[in-house]
Amino acid sequence: MSTTATPTIGVFDSGFGGLTVLRALIRRMPAARYIFLGDTARLPYGSKSQRTIARYAAESARFLVDEQKAEFLVIACNTASALALDAIEQAVPVPVLGVIEPGAAAARAASQSGDVLVVATEATVHSHAYAAACQARGLRALEKACPLLVPLVEEGWTEHPVTVEVIEIYLNELRAEAAAAGLKPDTLVLGCTHYPLLRPLFERAVRSGVKVIDSAESAAAAAVELLGDRATAASSGLVAETRVRCFATDSVEKFERLGSRFLDRSVGRVELVDLGG
Amino acid sequence: MSTTATPTIGVFDSGFGGLTVLRALIRRMPAARYIFLGDTARLPYGSKSQRTIARYAAESARFLVDEQKAEFLVIACNTASALALDAIEQAVPVPVLGVIEPGAAAARAASQSGDVLVVATEATVHSHAYAAACQARGLRALEKACPLLVPLVEEGWTEHPVTVEVIEIYLNELRAEAAAAGLKPDTLVLGCTHYPLLRPLFERAVRSGVKVIDSAESAAAAAVELLGDRATAASSGLVAETRVRCFATDSVEKFERLGSRFLDRSVGRVELVDLGG
Repeated sequence: MSTTATPTIGVFDSGFGGLTVLRALIRRMPAARYIFLGDTARLPYGSKSQRTIARYAAESARFLVDEQKAEFLVIACNTASALALDAIEQAVPVPVLGVIEPGAAAARAASQSGDVLVVATEATVHSHAYAAACQARGLRALEKACPLLVPLVEEGWTEHPVTVEVIEIYLNELRAEAAAAGLKPDTLVLGCTHYPLLRPLFERAVRSGVKVIDSAESAAAAAVELLGDRATAASSGLVAETRVRCFATDSVEKFERLGSRFLDRSVGRVELVDLGG
Repeated sequence: MSTTATPTIGVFDSGFGGLTVLRALIRRMPAARYIFLGDTARLPYGSKSQRTIARYAAESARFLVDEQKAEFLVIACNTASALALDAIEQAVPVPVLGVIEPGAAAARAASQSGDVLVVATEATVHSHAYAAACQARGLRALEKACPLLVPLVEEGWTEHPVTVEVIEIYLNELRAEAAAAGLKPDTLVLGCTHYPLLRPLFERAVRSGVKVIDSAESAAAAAVELLGDRATAASSGLVAETRVRCFATDSVEKFERLGSRFLDRSVGRVELVDLGG
């Protein structure tokens, strides 16, 4: 295969939130071929030990590369990006991109004050992966777990007054913590693959001058950069239909029901795959 | 061991919500010995297939009975009660009690109209286990999934205005559905082990004359009845300290942090146990 042929891109998540990353990839590279795997039988990764997560993520990566012939992997899962990127890179012989580094890089590019806020799930915050990636770029980051947001998105309340109120409560707490720490944040990173669906609410809720970074968009932009010429080939305007296959390890019903909302198009028939217990 | 000695009771849940059932058991039988197992490494059961849930639940039951010498099992997990009670009964040679039948029996005793509302998680509603158990008792039951309530409880917002509003929204939807179906419900079953912490909010939110059934309390009352003389021995007023041991299959941190709120006393040191992948 020529190196400028359109690539086969594997996208991996513990659930289906990573479909927002797939959506951002498709928007940039509609002519690529995509294989998405949601390890739904073993989610949530966030409550599991690093060793267990690394094993699950490596098995999933091998499925995408060895069986589905992905030539490039995007880990569209914050927990796996934080805790299993090394294990995945060791498990497969293709380039691997997580969501955390691109998010931190976009925050670095956006921030003038050098102070950044990060909202994410409990597991991601607990890993402090965003804080570390920001710190490595000379940023000070304050992270906050927002455990109600994923269920609000999954309930479909992406424009509901309750969600507006919950976001306001979380941001007020975060702003108070930032003020107490003497930070002057001018950038807010949405560090969870569910949150792009709440981006309009976040953009309305932040103080004027604060930029909202969508880590799904940042990851897709980083993928284009890494793929170089092959991304150019995949960005061709003449695409009848993007080729997408979705796999899940269990319970495809919720995936099919909610997935199209995340992907902003039909996920088609989700295929069941068994990666073991 | 004499049959009137205080019993060793195993309590099983996929997570730690079942600690509300343990709390209700302790209140009735403070002199019993309790072994609680939360299969946290493999939660949530709700998104998994029946075969997988049955295997997990049977393994957990064998740990409680074979290794921890439980003489009686309470399955303090709606999903496992709905989908794996038979598998558990076949796996262990002790009496097994779920949470669904006692909840339905309490609804039968409470309802005059014969029409009952059930609020539960998505997985429990999807199983229609409460509807079936109610129907078997001549009740008409309308079930509603309330996926935001578990995260609200885990966020500690058990008296928060947002939670009051979310409960009001869910109950309004449920009442509209009931009216459309021609039902005159006079009983509301809290069909999730997290919901006892929201019982005061539910009692304020229901229309006057509607009784709230807490399935954790119903399960504990049914356990007392099944244990007979041994329950009497365990109800002794002279108890220095109830003997409770808690086990989890992964990530004891959240269990220890939130568990005491569910149990209404310290969960002590939670012990990690490996039941396999």
